[in-house]
Amino acid sequence: MSRGLRVWQASARRPGQGCGLGMDMEKEQETLRAWKDRVARELDRVVAFWLDHSHDQEQGGFFTCLGRDGQVYDDLKYVWLQGRQVWMYCRLYRQFERFRRPELLNAAKAGGEFLLRYAQVAPPAKKCAFVLTRDGRPVKVQRTIFSECFYTMAMNELWRVTGDARYQNEAMEMMDQIVSWVREDPSGLGRPQLPGAPASESMAVPMMLLNLVEQLGEADEELAGISAELGDWCAQRILQHVQRGGQAVLENVSEDGEELSGCLGRHQNPGHALEAGWFLLRYAIQRGDAKLRAHVIDKFLLLPFHSGWDPEHGGLFYFQDADGLCPTQLEWAMKLWWPHSEAMIAFLMGYSETGDPALLRIFYQVAEYTFHRFRDPEYGEWFGYLNRDGKVALTIKGGPFKGCFHVPRCLAMCEEMLNNLLSRLAPASALSTRSPPAGPTRPGAE
Amino acid sequence: MSRGLRVWQASARRPGQGCGLGMDMEKEQETLRAWKDRVARELDRVVAFWLDHSHDQEQGGFFTCLGRDGQVYDDLKYVWLQGRQVWMYCRLYRQFERFRRPELLNAAKAGGEFLLRYAQVAPPAKKCAFVLTRDGRPVKVQRTIFSECFYTMAMNELWRVTGDARYQNEAMEMMDQIVSWVREDPSGLGRPQLPGAPASESMAVPMMLLNLVEQLGEADEELAGISAELGDWCAQRILQHVQRGGQAVLENVSEDGEELSGCLGRHQNPGHALEAGWFLLRYAIQRGDAKLRAHVIDKFLLLPFHSGWDPEHGGLFYFQDADGLCPTQLEWAMKLWWPHSEAMIAFLMGYSETGDPALLRIFYQVAEYTFHRFRDPEYGEWFGYLNRDGKVALTIKGGPFKGCFHVPRCLAMCEEMLNNLLSRLAPASALSTRSPPAGPTRPGAE
Repeated sequence: MSRGLRVWQASARRPGQGCGLGMDMEKEQETLRAWKDRVARELDRVVAFWLDHSHDQEQGGFFTCLGRDGQVYDDLKYVWLQGRQVWMYCRLYRQFERFRRPELLNAAKAGGEFLLRYAQVAPPAKKCAFVLTRDGRPVKVQRTIFSECFYTMAMNELWRVTGDARYQNEAMEMMDQIVSWVREDPSGLGRPQLPGAPASESMAVPMMLLNLVEQLGEADEELAGISAELGDWCAQRILQHVQRGGQAVLENVSEDGEELSGCLGRHQNPGHALEAGWFLLRYAIQRGDAKLRAHVIDKFLLLPFHSGWDPEHGGLFYFQDADGLCPTQLEWAMKLWWPHSEAMIAFLMGYSETGDPALLRIFYQVAEYTFHRFRDPEYGEWFGYLNRDGKVALTIKGGPFKGCFHVPRCLAMCEEMLNNLLSRLAPASALSTRSPPAGPTRPGAE
Repeated sequence: MSRGLRVWQASARRPGQGCGLGMDMEKEQETLRAWKDRVARELDRVVAFWLDHSHDQEQGGFFTCLGRDGQVYDDLKYVWLQGRQVWMYCRLYRQFERFRRPELLNAAKAGGEFLLRYAQVAPPAKKCAFVLTRDGRPVKVQRTIFSECFYTMAMNELWRVTGDARYQNEAMEMMDQIVSWVREDPSGLGRPQLPGAPASESMAVPMMLLNLVEQLGEADEELAGISAELGDWCAQRILQHVQRGGQAVLENVSEDGEELSGCLGRHQNPGHALEAGWFLLRYAIQRGDAKLRAHVIDKFLLLPFHSGWDPEHGGLFYFQDADGLCPTQLEWAMKLWWPHSEAMIAFLMGYSETGDPALLRIFYQVAEYTFHRFRDPEYGEWFGYLNRDGKVALTIKGGPFKGCFHVPRCLAMCEEMLNNLLSRLAPASALSTRSPPAGPTRPGAE
C-alpha cells in the first residue's frame, strides 16, 4: 500500500491491533456495522443532493447557495467552495467504486476548467478571488491564502484522476506561491502591516498547509520527501497553539508561540482544534510517533471536546473564550455542522488507531447528535446552522461557507474507517466498498 | 428657538398640535408620564454605568469592551465607539442640566484628544483606523467612512461645548474628505474596483452623511445653507432604497437606484430602515414637507416594523430577505438592542409629529419589549444580543460594535420628546429637565 493511501485510510494500517472490544465483540460489531450502513447511505443521499442541484451546466462550476430543497437562491461562485467540490468529486471518484461515474468526473473537470479560467484575479499573479459572478468575474478578494489552498487541492486531485499534467503544474505553482506568502513574504496578500497589530498566527494557516503537504505528497515519495520539512514546520506551528500549560488550544498565538492579549488571544474554536487533531493524528501515524499521537489525542481531541461540548443542550459550541468569558461573536453558542463532522472523523480515527473505547463512545455521542440534529430526512444534505438548543436556525443547505465538502468528506472517511474496523473484526466478510486507485493516478511517482 | 435645536427636539415645534388623545386624556397623560420617568431614570443608570467603568484615566479615551458587570475584558479602542462616546457625553452635557458635570466634559475632552492624537493612521492623510491599541497604535483599518464620520461628530460636538476652534477645524476638514470619498473619488478608501462587483450603494452611507449634515448645520444657518444640497442628495439616495413598488426597503441598491441581484439585493435590515426613518422624518419636518413626512412614516416606520417584528417571540429581526428566503447571516433572527432603540425614537417622533395614536401604540409595544428584555436591572446598561426567543445570548454590555451611544441617545431623545408631549398636554406643569444651551456654543452662528 502506498504511503498516500495510508494517509487517507489511516485506520487500515494495523489490522492486527487490538480494538478494546473486550466486552461483547458481537454487539460491538453490530453497532459498528449499523453505523457503517447508516453512514454509507447518508453519503449516497448527500452526493445525490449536490449532483441534482449544484451543477451549472451552462457556465461550468457549481452553485453552492442552495436552499433547503436545493433551489439556487444566489448564483455567486465562491472560489474555495468550487475548489472543495472539485476535490471532493475527484476523491469520491478515485476511492469509491460506486462513485466512479462520468457525471462526477465531468462536473469536476468543468469545475476545474472554470477555476483555471477565472479564479486568478490578474494572472499571471496567483492571487485568487474569494467570490466570482456566475460567469467568472471577480466580486471580492480576501487577503488570505484559503481560496488558493483549495484551488491547489482541486488541481492536484484532478491530475490524480485524469493524469493531465496541466492540473498538476497549476497545483505545484500555486503551492510555491502559498508557501512563499506564508514563510517568506506576505505582502502579496495585500494586508497592511500596522504598528498596533500583533504579529500573530491563526491556527488555520499551518493547518491548511499541513493538509496540502499531505495532499500533494500522497503516493509521491519524492515530493513527500521534499515537503517533509514543511510538514514538520506546520505540525510544530500547530502544536504551539496548545497553551496555558497544556490546558487550552488557542486559535491565535504570537509568531513565537506565546499567548496574545485580549479577546484575540483567548479565542477558541473547538471544531477547528478537532480538525487540527485529525490532521496531526495522520501526521503522527505516518511518522510512527506514538508519543505525539498520545499528545494529539489528549490536547486536540479530548480537551476541545470536553470543554467545547454544551453540557445543557449537547453539541459543540462554535467559539469559546479561554477564560470562560462571553465571546464577542454573536454566533458563539450556535451549533455548526462542520465542527461535528470534524469531531466524527477525529474520534473514529483516534479509536481506529488506539482501540481506546472511550474514543469510540465519543464518536457515537457526536454521531448521534449530528445525525439527529443536522440531517434533513426530507430533502437531503444537512442543515448547517442550529441554535444553541439544537433547533434549525438557517434552513439553507449551502451558502458562502458551506458547500459540497465537510459532510461528504466526513461520511466518506468514516465509511472507510468503519469498513476497516469491521474487516479487522471479521476478516472473512466482504465489507469493502473501496476500490483500487483509479486510472492514471500518481504519474511519475511509481 | 434655533434651527438646530428644533432638529434635536423635533417634537417641540407644534405645541398647539392635536395629539390624537380623544379617548382618556388623563389616562394617556399618566402613561406618558410614567414612561417619561422610567426613561429618565434609565438614562441616569446607563450614563452611570459608562462613567463608572469605561474611562481610561491613564491614556485617555474609553474602554468599550465591558462585561456584564462593567469589567474590562479587552482594552482595544474602537475609533467609531470613541467618537460616539465623546459625542454622547457632549450632547448630554449640552442638553441636560443634570448632566452638565465636569466629569462628563473632562472625559469627552480626553476622548477627543485621544482621537486627535491617534485616530488618523498616517496624517496628514485623513483615513482613520477602525481600532487602536489602548495606547493608540493602529490595529485595523476598514475600507469604509464610518470611523471618520463619528470622528467628525465628536469634534463638532466638542467645539459646541468648549468653543475651541481646533475641534471645529478638524470636523470640517474631515467632513470635506468624507464627502469627497463618497461623491467624487472613493480610491482613498483602498477598496479595489473589481469587474464582477456591482456598483452598489449601501443605505448606511447616505444615512450617515445626512446625520452629519444635520449635526454640522445645527444652529448654523450659513453652514446649513451651504450643505442643504448635500442633505437633499442624501435624502434622495436614501429614498431610492424603497423598492418593489413601495413594498420593501432594501439595504443595497445599484448606483442608479435599481434592485441588485442575489442575496445582496434582497438584503433587509429593519432596524436600519427605522433609523433612516427618523433621520428622514427630521429632514421632512425641517423642510415642512408633509407629503414626505407621510411617505417616510409609511415606508420607513410602518413597513419595516410590520415586516420585521417577530410574530412568534416579539422583537425585531436583525436581517431579512425581501423574498422571505432564509438569510445567510448566522445572526439573522437574533434580537439586537439598537434596532429597538431606533424604533423607539422613530415611533415616538412619528407620534409627536402626527398625533397618530397607532404610532404611540407601537412605541409602547417596542418600549415594553425593550425594557423587559434588554435592560439589566442588576448591573445597569442593556444587554446587546438576544436569541430569537428573547433570552440573553451575549452577556457583554459593550464590545467592538456596542458602546455608549444607541442606548443613551435613545433614552435622551425619548425623554425630551415625552417631556414635550407632556408640556403640550399640561403646559402649566414644570416637567422640563432640559436646560438652555451651555456655554460658548454656536459661535459664529448667532
